Amino acid sequence: LTKLTDIGEFGLIARFSPRFLSNLPAGVVGIGDDCAVLPWKKDARLLVTTDMLVEGIHFLRDRIRPRDLGAKSLAVNLSDIAAMGGKPDSAFLSLAIPRGTGVEWLDRLFKGIGDLTASENIHLLGGDTTRSPGPVVINIAVLGRVHPARVKFRSGARPGDEVCVTGFLGDSGGGLRVLLENRRQGRDEAYLVRRHNRPRAHLAEGAWLAGKKGVTAMMDVSDGIDSDLRRIMERSGCGAAVELEELPLSGPLRRAAAVRGWNLYEVAATGGEDYCLVATVRPDCLPGIARGFERKFGRRLSRIGSITGERGKLRYRLNGNPAVLGRHGFDHFR
Amino acid sequence: LTKLTDIGEFGLIARFSPRFLSNLPAGVVGIGDDCAVLPWKKDARLLVTTDMLVEGIHFLRDRIRPRDLGAKSLAVNLSDIAAMGGKPDSAFLSLAIPRGTGVEWLDRLFKGIGDLTASENIHLLGGDTTRSPGPVVINIAVLGRVHPARVKFRSGARPGDEVCVTGFLGDSGGGLRVLLENRRQGRDEAYLVRRHNRPRAHLAEGAWLAGKKGVTAMMDVSDGIDSDLRRIMERSGCGAAVELEELPLSGPLRRAAAVRGWNLYEVAATGGEDYCLVATVRPDCLPGIARGFERKFGRRLSRIGSITGERGKLRYRLNGNPAVLGRHGFDHFR
Repeated sequence: LTKLTDIGEFGLIARFSPRFLSNLPAGVVGIGDDCAVLPWKKDARLLVTTDMLVEGIHFLRDRIRPRDLGAKSLAVNLSDIAAMGGKPDSAFLSLAIPRGTGVEWLDRLFKGIGDLTASENIHLLGGDTTRSPGPVVINIAVLGRVHPARVKFRSGARPGDEVCVTGFLGDSGGGLRVLLENRRQGRDEAYLVRRHNRPRAHLAEGAWLAGKKGVTAMMDVSDGIDSDLRRIMERSGCGAAVELEELPLSGPLRRAAAVRGWNLYEVAATGGEDYCLVATVRPDCLPGIARGFERKFGRRLSRIGSITGERGKLRYRLNGNPAVLGRHGFDHFR
Repeated sequence: LTKLTDIGEFGLIARFSPRFLSNLPAGVVGIGDDCAVLPWKKDARLLVTTDMLVEGIHFLRDRIRPRDLGAKSLAVNLSDIAAMGGKPDSAFLSLAIPRGTGVEWLDRLFKGIGDLTASENIHLLGGDTTRSPGPVVINIAVLGRVHPARVKFRSGARPGDEVCVTGFLGDSGGGLRVLLENRRQGRDEAYLVRRHNRPRAHLAEGAWLAGKKGVTAMMDVSDGIDSDLRRIMERSGCGAAVELEELPLSGPLRRAAAVRGWNLYEVAATGGEDYCLVATVRPDCLPGIARGFERKFGRRLSRIGSITGERGKLRYRLNGNPAVLGRHGFDHFR
């Protein structure tokens, strides 16, 4: 008997998706990108995404405040909408809850969801509530829209394109390590934990980048760039080279890694859950786009490497020398 | 501290939905019906629904074949689309799976989903897969469409309307009892178990009834008519009277109930998961609609009672005398 652990999460998707990718109607993009894309109106495509958070896998109930958990459950979906260059419109929440759960805990969970729907002008339009025999399970589906001329896919990267990210890498992975290490925390650690528990979807950044023709591919950094870049490589039929010294790292992450002996580049490239965006940009367009990004958002669009023609090969370099990472990006079943 | 068990599933929904029902955009129907309804095109509204099935709550893994489980997980959503009179278009699957799960079990689960997407011409366009620390959790969201002039809500029932159902009641609840009783099974019991494990969404029936102006409200029978009729009563601001001897009961259910000493009417009214439709019909239109239904589907549209002006009162009668049911419809948290 084959176990799930033998084939992994991406093996599972590869095993089951082909039958659902044949005979799609015109204009429909199915499994394989951050969102599904459906025909909608003349000036808009419909985006749909869904994410499931399971207690004990994605979060520990005693390490995250319910208000943060509610907001994060929604934010991870908004991040998928951001990756397509879209604007989120509505959300649908399914919730499995153990019998003894306090209503006050749920009040705060809904407060976190409600704060974010209000600030992003999203409407929670439906869902399902049920009992759970064990873990809290939160599934949110989000519908959004994007102009047909602006939608960005994972499949558009071409050799020579530059690889850029819209925010710090590794903060969330560092925060997770802090939560699991259970050691005394200072201000740096508190910052990292907050970045893990309360990620921000880069909706404004995604919408802005979507308006640039020089942006050839985009996705959100959910499993770590080591894993996420491989998804872009697969869909675009190319390879990539990353210069580790170019990864944008926050001061708190640098200091916490030094104190705690973490491999900084490993945390940054494989930690996951940063929920910034990774975009590939035509080299001739990068200077203008980077300047515009900095003017608009007050921080850098960081170039971390480039797309290569070495199909399927993700190479790392550190200060010009080949480098190897100790761990790979996140896979739920390994 | 207030526990979830104190307020129940409907108390939970009542507690959290108001904040999400204010300031909805024009033409949007949010929480409170079988599907959310969103503006789309001149000749179509978008329908969205989502349902979560949790191992140990909705199913026992050793009592349902994975192929049936896959099909049922989708069918319960299609039933919500049917209740609005709509046609399903696409599905999104989130799956949490314990690490040791065999891939062959998943093959069969996906076979059940794929058979139904193929036969109903639905496209599975996305989803999420993750590990579970315990139960298998399946969340499916379905998008569909309905003509604006045909969409049916729970809120349209008026005193004097007749209450009708499109199929047998109680078969699924009987099947669940058989599964839990773990006694020797004959053909009747096998039929009931099949009706529980492999429900059929009444899509054709829903679409046909949606074309009739005399149908004033519709919903699917998911928790049992005792619970589901109360939802119509709430949304329509009315009451209802049900004549228990009119509930359409299958031969296998009657015989199994006689052999096993079940209260037949209790199983039929509170068992849940029949996934036929309950519709309210203007009395002057009922004869024509019932005749048309029988001609079209080869079975009866069964009248089981009527809507009353006694707001919030659900009354049962058996052969003309007031009757009381021993149990109420399904609530996940009680």
